Amino acid sequence: MIIQKTENSRISTFDPNNFSFGGTFIDHMIICEYENGKWGDVKLVPYGPIPFTPAMMGVNYGQACFEGMKAYKDKDGQVFLFRPEKNFERINKSAKRLAMPEVTEEMFLDGLKALVDIDRDWIPQGEGMSLYIRPLIFATEEALKARVSEKYMFAIVATPAKSYYSEPVSVKISDHYSRAANGGVGSAKAAGNYAASFYPTQLAIEEGYEQIIWTDDATHEYFEESGTMNVFVRINDTIYTPPTSEKILDGVTRDSFLQLAKKRGIEVKVEPIPVKTVIEAQKNGTLKEVWGVGTAVVTTVFQALGYQGEKLALPKLSDADSYAATLKKDLVDLQNNLSEDPFGWRVVVDHALETV
Amino acid sequence: MIIQKTENSRISTFDPNNFSFGGTFIDHMIICEYENGKWGDVKLVPYGPIPFTPAMMGVNYGQACFEGMKAYKDKDGQVFLFRPEKNFERINKSAKRLAMPEVTEEMFLDGLKALVDIDRDWIPQGEGMSLYIRPLIFATEEALKARVSEKYMFAIVATPAKSYYSEPVSVKISDHYSRAANGGVGSAKAAGNYAASFYPTQLAIEEGYEQIIWTDDATHEYFEESGTMNVFVRINDTIYTPPTSEKILDGVTRDSFLQLAKKRGIEVKVEPIPVKTVIEAQKNGTLKEVWGVGTAVVTTVFQALGYQGEKLALPKLSDADSYAATLKKDLVDLQNNLSEDPFGWRVVVDHALETV
Repeated sequence: MIIQKTENSRISTFDPNNFSFGGTFIDHMIICEYENGKWGDVKLVPYGPIPFTPAMMGVNYGQACFEGMKAYKDKDGQVFLFRPEKNFERINKSAKRLAMPEVTEEMFLDGLKALVDIDRDWIPQGEGMSLYIRPLIFATEEALKARVSEKYMFAIVATPAKSYYSEPVSVKISDHYSRAANGGVGSAKAAGNYAASFYPTQLAIEEGYEQIIWTDDATHEYFEESGTMNVFVRINDTIYTPPTSEKILDGVTRDSFLQLAKKRGIEVKVEPIPVKTVIEAQKNGTLKEVWGVGTAVVTTVFQALGYQGEKLALPKLSDADSYAATLKKDLVDLQNNLSEDPFGWRVVVDHALETV
Repeated sequence: MIIQKTENSRISTFDPNNFSFGGTFIDHMIICEYENGKWGDVKLVPYGPIPFTPAMMGVNYGQACFEGMKAYKDKDGQVFLFRPEKNFERINKSAKRLAMPEVTEEMFLDGLKALVDIDRDWIPQGEGMSLYIRPLIFATEEALKARVSEKYMFAIVATPAKSYYSEPVSVKISDHYSRAANGGVGSAKAAGNYAASFYPTQLAIEEGYEQIIWTDDATHEYFEESGTMNVFVRINDTIYTPPTSEKILDGVTRDSFLQLAKKRGIEVKVEPIPVKTVIEAQKNGTLKEVWGVGTAVVTTVFQALGYQGEKLALPKLSDADSYAATLKKDLVDLQNNLSEDPFGWRVVVDHALETV
């Protein structure tokens, strides 16, 4: 790895109590370029612009995929990543589906650790605070031909992330728009999947909802995801979530919730969730909770489901009664080194670059 | 429009008989930036790089769409665009579906004309030669939040295009992968649609085909598009093409073929094309031709269809007997000012910037 430390650190301008999540960038980034059939040197360099023309294939043909993950700082200042190997596996799954070159462990995991290590001062401390990390791969060849690019960039950029409590939201069960096709790219964290979701979400907002529960594109009879999150439904005391598939993202938070639920002895069923079943359960009072999970907010709890023009209210549960809140706390405590880690999910980021 | 002419024209290095299509760029480009809810000045500037960080939303969340169009130079050196208002309408349709700001006529049509005018020397002359033009809009805000971008760039870049005869190809009728979902972005020229198509196409190539005929994602029983083109089928002496929909792109070449076919008195049916009907027609000898149409190559004729492990051969027709070849010639002659233009499709590009 080639390391070029910044000579103009911006850390003195960073106020951990007052910053914009997503728009504040740490001092460094990882970049690595692919050309002539192979990846070049992994470089840790100052965060900043790189020249691209509007003929860059990444913005013309959409070969671009990413990961979202976090680093956490405990009360002693120790820094941890959370299950980074899951993101490493998934970015390569996404890359394969988009006909992009896979990245190596050195690029992804070593790059990640070096970046988090060198910029560990940017990680805010305290409940729910973290560093949000964005590894991505995108096509960089300058060419106007609708074919696979011959040049790519792998990069890791990061922004400090606030603790944010997410208010319960109302979600519309989609009856027209969809997120993924059979035989499509729904299971990949493909850039284009996000762009495709914005307009339907805007329409749902105009109808008085905050998010969409995506359903299958052919019949709209089954739950797929909610917003940019995996979806969970609790009927009586059983938790349901759809199985991952080529249409449903294999979420790290989803998998962690499943394991944490099992550890607590909560009954979990990974099976298709018919919209009809959820609506019936709402009508007969057995529907207890519906929520989404993802890296950014961990959990968003739903207070109402929009279906066929009706807004169906969900019960308000106390944190003690809510599986969503209980499992969120289990996860966040584990991530922040406030509890045991029987799964081996925490990965300490060693001090390795201090003498550089 | 702000015009900044290059002081380092590369035109002397351009050999119209020997250049790389898609990788050779004309001297200038159009750019226009969107910020604070509005588009700024339209600028005609030297083609070249613009600084973006890897946090650019365009490569993270895929808000990016484009158009493909051409300018033609006739034997007297007059330069024409072809139905540019169709591309203007469509880029805004794409932008809307991707929750991006629509562009103005001044940005798109005036920008286009100014660019083609100032770089008219880059347009190669002769049969099938043209300038391939790429208008595009992409998200430029630097932010790691999965939401609509607040900054965009509209750009027009262009590359000289060769006359290229496209050999007949074998195409696989897709039985698993798909291009578009119901309620998805198939009808938009969204960047992500192209990335999604590359891997299935690579698999088809490994099976001995050159392209894919995309079918509906739920049943694979109906033709949608072929490769990056609209698809036409001729059974006996009737031409079929699927109706445009939210899954099928409203192609300018498709529409032109339909109008040219009607002008010739060829029977045209715009209706869903069942795979079964095409296969039966191949078996009973009534399937005469299947081809794709698009701006880049105009027409790609298919010599065989792959279906359920079988490679079904298509007849070889002479150019005189082929509707694909006949309509292609009609179109190309019109585009190159070699025939009348009863439709008003040609748009002359005036000399306006010579004195700048």
